[in-house]
This record gives sequence, structure tokens and C-alpha cells, in this order.
Amino acid sequence: MIMGILTIGNELTSGRIQDTNSSLIARAMQVQGWPVAGMMSVGDDAGAIRAALDYLLMRAEAVIVTGGLGPTADDITTEAVARAFGLALHTDEAILAHIRGMFEKRRLAWTENNAKQALFPEGAEIIANPAGTAAGFALRREGRVVAVIPGVPAEARRMLEEGVIPLLRGEFQEAALHVETATFKLFGLPEAAVDAAMAGANLADLGVAIGFYPNFPENHLVLTARTASAEEAGEKLREAGARVEARLGKYIFARGQETLAGNIAGLMTERRLTLAVAESCTGGLITDRLTDIPGSSVFLERGVVTYSNAAKTALLGVPEPVIREHGAVSAETAHLMAEGVRNMAATDLGLAVTGISGPSGGTESKPVGTVYIALADGGTVACRHHAFRWERRRNKIVASQAALMMLWRYLRGEASF
Amino acid sequence: MIMGILTIGNELTSGRIQDTNSSLIARAMQVQGWPVAGMMSVGDDAGAIRAALDYLLMRAEAVIVTGGLGPTADDITTEAVARAFGLALHTDEAILAHIRGMFEKRRLAWTENNAKQALFPEGAEIIANPAGTAAGFALRREGRVVAVIPGVPAEARRMLEEGVIPLLRGEFQEAALHVETATFKLFGLPEAAVDAAMAGANLADLGVAIGFYPNFPENHLVLTARTASAEEAGEKLREAGARVEARLGKYIFARGQETLAGNIAGLMTERRLTLAVAESCTGGLITDRLTDIPGSSVFLERGVVTYSNAAKTALLGVPEPVIREHGAVSAETAHLMAEGVRNMAATDLGLAVTGISGPSGGTESKPVGTVYIALADGGTVACRHHAFRWERRRNKIVASQAALMMLWRYLRGEASF
Repeated sequence: MIMGILTIGNELTSGRIQDTNSSLIARAMQVQGWPVAGMMSVGDDAGAIRAALDYLLMRAEAVIVTGGLGPTADDITTEAVARAFGLALHTDEAILAHIRGMFEKRRLAWTENNAKQALFPEGAEIIANPAGTAAGFALRREGRVVAVIPGVPAEARRMLEEGVIPLLRGEFQEAALHVETATFKLFGLPEAAVDAAMAGANLADLGVAIGFYPNFPENHLVLTARTASAEEAGEKLREAGARVEARLGKYIFARGQETLAGNIAGLMTERRLTLAVAESCTGGLITDRLTDIPGSSVFLERGVVTYSNAAKTALLGVPEPVIREHGAVSAETAHLMAEGVRNMAATDLGLAVTGISGPSGGTESKPVGTVYIALADGGTVACRHHAFRWERRRNKIVASQAALMMLWRYLRGEASF
Repeated sequence: MIMGILTIGNELTSGRIQDTNSSLIARAMQVQGWPVAGMMSVGDDAGAIRAALDYLLMRAEAVIVTGGLGPTADDITTEAVARAFGLALHTDEAILAHIRGMFEKRRLAWTENNAKQALFPEGAEIIANPAGTAAGFALRREGRVVAVIPGVPAEARRMLEEGVIPLLRGEFQEAALHVETATFKLFGLPEAAVDAAMAGANLADLGVAIGFYPNFPENHLVLTARTASAEEAGEKLREAGARVEARLGKYIFARGQETLAGNIAGLMTERRLTLAVAESCTGGLITDRLTDIPGSSVFLERGVVTYSNAAKTALLGVPEPVIREHGAVSAETAHLMAEGVRNMAATDLGLAVTGISGPSGGTESKPVGTVYIALADGGTVACRHHAFRWERRRNKIVASQAALMMLWRYLRGEASF
């Protein structure tokens, strides 16, 4: 079934509020396997609502509308939709009693404009709102359906799941198609190179669609299979996924809803390892990312942000002469930072980053973006050099990613990390 | 001038990525005083792009399009727009050389599909992309303009401000109309309270429009004056700004492009003070925010993320019995953390945060969201208790904001901080 989405409100067309309902609904449609032909947002204007509705109904079998169901004068969605369908409005007495009941229960003063929320187009099927006063409704015309729900995100989410989707599934039973997706998250390869690597995989032969989603500094690759049965979709995705792994395996650090920090947390916890982190140019971003994962306190003993040379010496035991001779940004310093933080914290692992985020501080031999990352495990210290080429914030993000990738590869037992 | 906005990408219609460009553009149009007749999103489909463009061009004098300018096969916006206008594509050699240069500079491997980003419709005016490889372009038809820019938000934002808006202002002879805005950034007051506080300010009498933009955990308030002369706009904004300051001054921490971390960095540097930070629940986010500011190494001596109790004792000198008796999350521990990090680092100031971000770890007396923040300056230690009510990430963000606000108020010499 082809879908359209229409969100209504001057707060959207003025940019005052970010429209999150369109994305929420589009995602729910994706899960159902109903492609979205178009998403539109218009202000609280009857002509604009009608034109948008006509446009979407020409291209979609069902349209989900949110917003403009409130009690105030600028909420005109119900009236505009009724007019577009040539229908009169009538009061639903049960809904009116329900709204009055909510006012009494919450001890709010009743004003007559609230009765407006009990007005519906003739013949509309009412969609209950378990969380608020604004009920929704659905209308049918020439085999097409328009479902209208409020714009308040929490109410829209619940009414979509509990009201609109069941109604549409019943209405278009024959159109139910199985859609399954598989997501791969990659780091270390530009989008075009990911694309080039996948060009020969012939996923189209399998009827599997491929999408690329840059999410700095990561690239996300999403496979989608639409088939009549769940088994068939699963089989196609397994085969397509194997082709992705064969071509890009070494860049993939997470699948589906997984994250890099989350996968590291999982491996650290599973293997009962502890970690201490010494950061310079990343400024705390590595531990910030790790501590976004609930339960990270189990493995993360400490982090230190040694911005000054004195702190590198005092907190990590990096000898002053090493910093003087090789520089604070050097393989030697990174090496000693990783060893030092591991020793000081008495953890299994020590991870250290030192570099130049910019915009200043670069030299001919060590330009902005120069980063050294070291990982110490008590046996050896591995050290890697990177040359990033972004502005300050992105240099910090990509350096934190590279450090976490190094740790993740180590934890997976990869030969090269 | 009536505007239309079209964002393109399967990642939008599949709900995989939240469209933030529409909102960004709508807000910029609001500042210019150009109403937005409609915002549309369609997938990477030539027919859908063309139909949406036709729809918007019937209702708007100018349409801004984002997305689908990448090098991969699914990026078809340029071709689709050219076809809609009946124009052939040609390679712009200067842009091609620029893209090749960026690849060399970033030491990325060149693949031939990248040459696609140098293709433009005949007669298009190119809109430079200072931040990436995908240049934009503008086309004119029957007095209407279509401007196309990439979907990457950072690039879209910059090209909108530096390329598209100046082009549209020139095109529609609105270059003479002065639009000036003044932004105030607030923390610590809910949006409804900001709105209520401004209700009596009568900014409409001045011909100054007021907009509220929630930007968690901050609220941004934007004043807009559109007048014939720069002097008049400046005068109106000064008067309106004074009314904002009078009502909300104590919640304002930044104006215009300023940030909280940037303003702190300015004051620290100006007063030649040094800082050490001890973080627990914020996990490094405070130093991450401070180190986003170039030159922060001048005042930030170190940060420590003392996630374990052992680290609190070893790195900060918090006595074990204090943690045992009062808890790691307590005013007593926060107090000693701030003093401890200041002493250990021998800095002027010590800032410390300890709390419970959730989802687990809360108790009856100290629920999730409990946070203690302390600031030591060698003379006294100030300590504040907060009770936040968000999920883990937002609790971290709001706690880092509260800690930075406390430091900022101290630096400003406010009696209460």
C-alpha cells in the first residue's frame, strides 16, 4: 500500500518546531512495508490543507494527517478535511461527554471552544485518544483512506500504533507485504568507496534494495527486502548480508541497532575486562561516548583529560624529557600515556589519544588532524598514527571513533587493530 | 516572497533519518519574512521529485531543494531537476578540479563516480560548497527560482546562509530591505515560562517579532526586525533587547552566535584563571564541551572522569569513609571532589559533578537524575543539588549545562551561582 503523510501547523512552516511526527510515521510505515510516496507539511490554512490532501490522495492509497485538532481558533484541520470531502460536521455526543469528563477529572474550567473537539465529519470512524482530549478520525473515499490524529508527538505515537495501523491493516488486508531490513555500520571508508565496493554485489538480482546513510563519521548501509513471506525476506537478507560482509567486513563494527560504544561495553563486560582512558585532543569525548551506555561503570575505571603537559606527567607518569624531545603529540607520548593510565588505574587496558584538533597548533611535520592512538594491555602497546582533515569538532569526533575502533578490534581478537 | 521547501532522500521517506533541513530552512525564511507555503519530502525518485517541484512552483515564487547531490547511484536530484526543466547536463570543469583537489588534500582515493558531482544543468548558477564536495545550483524559470543544495545539514546550513539567501534577495530585489535578528540563549526556565515572562513586553508595538526555539537543554529567543534602514532595525532591536534583558536577564548566558562553553573560555582566558574538572555522571561531557573551544588548553589544566570510587580516592583524595558514609552521589563527595581536583591540579578553580544518570542506580532518597555540583576556588566550596527528570543522555547533557552555568555565573561575579 502506498502511503502519504501530511503534518499541519504554522509552528512547522515557521520552523519554530522540528516536525518529528513525519519521521515517526514514515518509520512505522517502513516496518509495515508500506512505501511513503510523499510527506508534506503545511500551515493552519484550509486551502493549503485541501491542496496537499488532494495531491497526496492522487499518489497514495492512504494518507495519515497529524495536527490542528486542538480547541483553539487556529486548529482547523477537521473542518478543512470535511470540506475537502464535501461532508458536513456533526457533534459526537459520546466524545463530548468523554471530553467533559476529562475536564472534570483534571478540575479544569470548561470553556465552550472545547466542544469543537467533539465535531467530526459525517460518516467518520472515530479513533480514540487514550492520552488526551483530541480524538482522531478516519474517512474513506473511492477506496482510499484518510486518517487524522493530533500533532502532540506522544499522542500521535500511541494513536498511530493502537488506532491507525490496525485500521489500515484491516482495510487493506490484501496489501500486507513482508518487509525486512538489515543495517550495517561502517567506519574507515568514504561513502563513494562503500558504493563502489558494493557495485559488483548484484543485490538487485536478489530483489534486495541497498541504501547508504552517512552519519559522520560512520556510514550506514541498509538492505531492504520486500517479499510475500517472512521466510523469503529473511533468506534474501541473509544472502545479501553475506555479500556485504564479504566485501566490507573489516569496516563493519555494528549491525542493526547496535552502536560502537555499546558493542565495546558488551565485549568488555562479557570478558570482565577493565579500562582506563587518557585523552588529550578528544577532550573527554571517548569517555562521554562510553558512559552513554548504561552499566559502563562496570568496566570503565577512570578517564583523564590531560590537556597540559604537567597533567601528562603527574597523572600518567609521562617523563618530561620524552615530551620535550618528541612532543606532546607523538607516538612516544601516546605509548607512555596508554601504559601510564593503565598502571595508575590498575586496569586490564589503557587507551590513550593525543593529537592536534585545530584550528591552530599544527606544524609542517605535524599538521592539524595529526593524531596518535595507543592501546596498552600489559603485554604490548600498540600505537597508530592518523592524519585527519576536518575542522576541530569533526577531528575530535573522528579521533574518538578511531580510538574506539582500535579498542573494539583488539577486543574481537583481530590480528591488526 | 512565498517559498516552498523540498527535501529529497529515501532516508527521509523511510523514516531512517529525521529531516532537520526543512525546519532549518523554514526558520531562515521566517527571519527573512518569506512565508513558507509548503514543505515536501520525497524519495530518490525522478517522477516524485518532478511532481513535487511542479506542485511547489505553482504555489511559491522560490523553492529550496536539499538532498540527493551525492556521488552514489541513488543520488538523482540534479538529473531529475534538469529533466523537469528540460535542460541537458554538462560538466563544470572548475568544480571537477575543486572536487579532485579536496580528495587529494584529504588523501582519499578517487573513484570515477565522484565526477558526477561536477554535473550541472545547462545555464545553472553554481552555489559554492565551502564545506564539502557537492556544490549546489540555482535555476530560473518564468520569474521563479529553484535553488538546490546538499542534504548534509552542516553544508546545507552554510550554503543557505552564504549562497541561497543572498541569491534570492538579489533576485527578488529585496536586497534593500534590512532584516536583523538578535538571539538570546537561556537556561533554567521552561519555554512556557519564557513565553509568559515576555507576554507583557509589547514587542509588537516596536514592530519586532519574537520567536521561541527550544534547543535542549537551552531555550533560544530570537527577535527579528525588518525595516527599510539598518539604523532603524538596530534601534528597534536594542530597545526590544533591553526589554528581554529586563525580564529574563538572569537566565541569559549567551547572545547571537555565542555559546556557554565559549563565553566561559573567554572569561577564563581574560582573567588568566585555570580550571580542573572532576566528572562522574557526566562522563567527560563537560571537558568535551570546553575543549570544543579553540584555545581551551590555555585554561583547562586537566579533567578526570572518576567513575569508580577508587578513582575518586586516588585521583581526588576523597577519603573512603566519606564515600562510604554519605555515598558517591552526595554533597559531601561533590565538595571534596571539587577541592581535590583543584588541589591535585594546582589550578585556580575546581569543578566537580557527581550524580545518577540512570536508567538504574536510583534509590528512594536519591532517584535517577539526582546530581550534586561543586565549585572550589581555594576560599570556599559552593555546592548545589539538582533533581533532573530525563533519560540517561539528557540527564548527562542537562547536568553538564548546570555545571557550566554555575562556573559561568561565578566567573561573572554573580552573588548567587
